[in-house]
Amino acid sequence: MAQNKVAGPEIERLIQLLSKLPGLGPRSARRAALHLIKKKDQLLVPLAEAMGIAVEKIGVCSSCGTVDTSDPCAICCDAKRDQSVLVVVEDVADLWALERAAAINARYHVLGGTLSPLDGVGPEDLNIASLIERCQGGGISEVILAINATVEGQTTAHYIMDQLTGLAVNVTRLAHGVPVGGELDYLDEGTLTQALRARTRF
Amino acid sequence: MAQNKVAGPEIERLIQLLSKLPGLGPRSARRAALHLIKKKDQLLVPLAEAMGIAVEKIGVCSSCGTVDTSDPCAICCDAKRDQSVLVVVEDVADLWALERAAAINARYHVLGGTLSPLDGVGPEDLNIASLIERCQGGGISEVILAINATVEGQTTAHYIMDQLTGLAVNVTRLAHGVPVGGELDYLDEGTLTQALRARTRF
Ligand SMILES: [Zn+2]
Ligand SMILES: [Zn+2]
Repeated sequence: MAQNKVAGPEIERLIQLLSKLPGLGPRSARRAALHLIKKKDQLLVPLAEAMGIAVEKIGVCSSCGTVDTSDPCAICCDAKRDQSVLVVVEDVADLWALERAAAINARYHVLGGTLSPLDGVGPEDLNIASLIERCQGGGISEVILAINATVEGQTTAHYIMDQLTGLAVNVTRLAHGVPVGGELDYLDEGTLTQALRARTRF
Repeated sequence: MAQNKVAGPEIERLIQLLSKLPGLGPRSARRAALHLIKKKDQLLVPLAEAMGIAVEKIGVCSSCGTVDTSDPCAICCDAKRDQSVLVVVEDVADLWALERAAAINARYHVLGGTLSPLDGVGPEDLNIASLIERCQGGGISEVILAINATVEGQTTAHYIMDQLTGLAVNVTRLAHGVPVGGELDYLDEGTLTQALRARTRF
């Protein structure tokens, strides 16, 4: 069904781009665009600026794979964190969830996804080689696989476990408490903290 | 409950501003920010540009009150529209809805809200004086009050009706009835009664 254009091309383009954000459909994108235009000074101007700064400054940490304005990121550079523990997560959103929970004071490694042969995602598509390198570099005594309790997540965990065999690192995983099929980003802080405290040997 | 900061101040500010958009809460704002950062070239850069253009170019039409990149707006300047009919709406979103429906080929007048004494919204807070002026200017034969069928909307409609008394314009309002595709069982009694009273020959 053809959609009539309701506004000039500049507004239409703003609506079209906003509709690509997760959680916003075409209708809510129109509402968001209108809200931005109405709140020009309070919202549109600062958001345009924040996005411009993000474009300029935010990149991927070459060490852990998270996003930040510095490389290495603030977490990797934080000397107060336990340098001997790496928490392996699928996605930056999971790292954020663990940091929000203040569940652990260690460093991370962001895989960027899970193994999924059906989708053509192999080990070379994830940050697995760099994880092995970090562990081979020494100084890492424990790798915590904080990976979603999905089939793909657990397949990925097993693959990483195999790759780390022979290195002097303990590989652990999150305790039961993560619902089967559940995703970290949806869990409350208490559950995340408990799951980390009760982590078990892989 | 204090929320731990999970990322640098630039990312936190982006998340915080995104969370002010209608339809996005704190959680979905984080997802949106991460999505933007990951899709830097495909989404963040163009959206930042589109917002910058919006900041520079988009303003309020001094004639009808809608938002556009030109003043008067494209609709007010469109010579192919019926110049003798004004459609009065509460909000730009309503104008957009009528335009999407291609419901009428006329011009609009955006009130910018409804009368609401309890919220301190009086006639002087809405674009009512400018509506009267447009009608006094001549050339307008019909004013269609396309105002929401809420108590505030109908109060506003009556107020405008009173103000237009004595001018040579017909004031009409939208028909009440069963929405196209609507199911009787879901409609309130007022709508059903109105729809029956205004029944038309099949
Ligand atoms: Zn890092
Ligand atoms: Zn206009």
